[in-house]
Amino acid sequence: MSDPYIHPTALVETETIGEDTKIWAYTHIMKDVPIGANCNIGDSCFIESGAIVGNNVTIKNGNMLFEGITLEDGVFVGPHVFFTNDRFPRSPRLPEAGMRYETHDWFAPTLIKYGATLGAAAVILPGVTVGEFAMVGAGSIVTKDIPSQALTIGNPARQIGWVCECGEKLDFDPADQAKCGMCGKKYQQHAGKIKKVS
Amino acid sequence: MSDPYIHPTALVETETIGEDTKIWAYTHIMKDVPIGANCNIGDSCFIESGAIVGNNVTIKNGNMLFEGITLEDGVFVGPHVFFTNDRFPRSPRLPEAGMRYETHDWFAPTLIKYGATLGAAAVILPGVTVGEFAMVGAGSIVTKDIPSQALTIGNPARQIGWVCECGEKLDFDPADQAKCGMCGKKYQQHAGKIKKVS
Amino acid sequence: MSDPYIHPTALVETETIGEDTKIWAYTHIMKDVPIGANCNIGDSCFIESGAIVGNNVTIKNGNMLFEGITLEDGVFVGPHVFFTNDRFPRSPRLPEAGMRYETHDWFAPTLIKYGATLGAAAVILPGVTVGEFAMVGAGSIVTKDIPSQALTIGNPARQIGWVCECGEKLDFDPADQAKCGMCGKKYQQHAGKIKKVS
Repeated sequence: MSDPYIHPTALVETETIGEDTKIWAYTHIMKDVPIGANCNIGDSCFIESGAIVGNNVTIKNGNMLFEGITLEDGVFVGPHVFFTNDRFPRSPRLPEAGMRYETHDWFAPTLIKYGATLGAAAVILPGVTVGEFAMVGAGSIVTKDIPSQALTIGNPARQIGWVCECGEKLDFDPADQAKCGMCGKKYQQHAGKIKKVS
Repeated sequence: MSDPYIHPTALVETETIGEDTKIWAYTHIMKDVPIGANCNIGDSCFIESGAIVGNNVTIKNGNMLFEGITLEDGVFVGPHVFFTNDRFPRSPRLPEAGMRYETHDWFAPTLIKYGATLGAAAVILPGVTVGEFAMVGAGSIVTKDIPSQALTIGNPARQIGWVCECGEKLDFDPADQAKCGMCGKKYQQHAGKIKKVS
Repeated sequence: MSDPYIHPTALVETETIGEDTKIWAYTHIMKDVPIGANCNIGDSCFIESGAIVGNNVTIKNGNMLFEGITLEDGVFVGPHVFFTNDRFPRSPRLPEAGMRYETHDWFAPTLIKYGATLGAAAVILPGVTVGEFAMVGAGSIVTKDIPSQALTIGNPARQIGWVCECGEKLDFDPADQAKCGMCGKKYQQHAGKIKKVS
């Protein structure tokens, strides 16, 4: 284990970064953001106070994480995923909209659960939860919660299959059983969910 | 009122920035861009000569405003909105396309009118006008003009409703009347438009 | 001919950059990336070792080119095009997915051929080839190979027409012939392809 690495051009205002985490060029992390251990945060990212990053997280280049975005352990955020936290935003400086921002009611948090993948340039609408080990395809627009291990694509994102914990696409047989071609884990599908059986 | 704030890592070449405006990290504003008062321009933005930014504008992180993009007062630009100004671009350095760039005919400007909202990661095709207080949903692809106060989503963006000046979605009753649940403004819908009645 | 220009805020680790190429603010190019002559690479780009950039290429702001992305001569990459190189990515730090990254089998390269255009915010899935002088519309999601000179838009991207080498849209007559309204080149359409006849 070793101290975090921070690129000389990065701006890191938080003091809570786990061991072995690397933060690359032109990335800006605001104060009080907790960043876990063994993460890799690419170039030109921005992480706002009020976001949370777990352990073993990979954040590719160009990601902007705002207040209320939580990434649990082991999450993969592809390049330029677009997070949001306000369903009907206006410029808070617009006189006609000033009352929207007198309270914090505009705010809707987002939760990306353990081991999930967000593909490049996916758009995550405010208030959704992406389940454990789910996989969101590149360029998808996520408008509602995504079940654990669901493979989803499109605008709006819809489920087209299932993925293994390791990320491999699963092919279920007529008995609703699947064995992962990469890591060998076995699953049973039942009532719209899958369950690991070994 | 106070002088503009410019983050130490920002590159600001313009000399026309209004009072109280803030410009954040790694943002680059080219010369002669007029920037209004009381704006907030987030990290990692780029504003090219030939763009115009009004007063009370909020530009979230990662926005690139090119020549011909005009933001009127009170506009909200979500994170990573994608502006364009050339319908059929080629590399100007490609010998087969050099003649495209001998004149300025390739150029198509974009106008975002007073109080409008552009959601995160929306794509704005060249030459469109987004009407006053219109709201473009996150990830939408705007291919044609958008009426004032229209709520639009999708690829291509299509209207699905109306929003109040304050940003709240409006629900019209059978008599085509609506009262905003947030700010109380009243509207009458008629012939495909809405009009504020109080 | 003259030496490359590198903006003072850019980080350039490669030593192979052609004459007259310009590299702008906050852009980071890793070591050993070959960059051709007479290119223009905008602000806030990232080019990873294992990417290749030809001559006369225009890369607009905010582009991230990863290992395996090849841009042939004369390519235009609009602002914020999203490249990828892994079909089913996971965080390599996620224990359940570590075996995916023990070999390089996850890797799928992308080839953008001579004179092609990638519109703003297009998403390029791993493993595709975009043909010579093809044009990908802004915000399109490219999931499979694109023929030479094809004009493609949408999610997933589908062909809606043809463009000239110079970038102009071609209108074919009932005899399947077209003359470019910009540069005068003539084409014959036959069996789902077009051929330049003068």
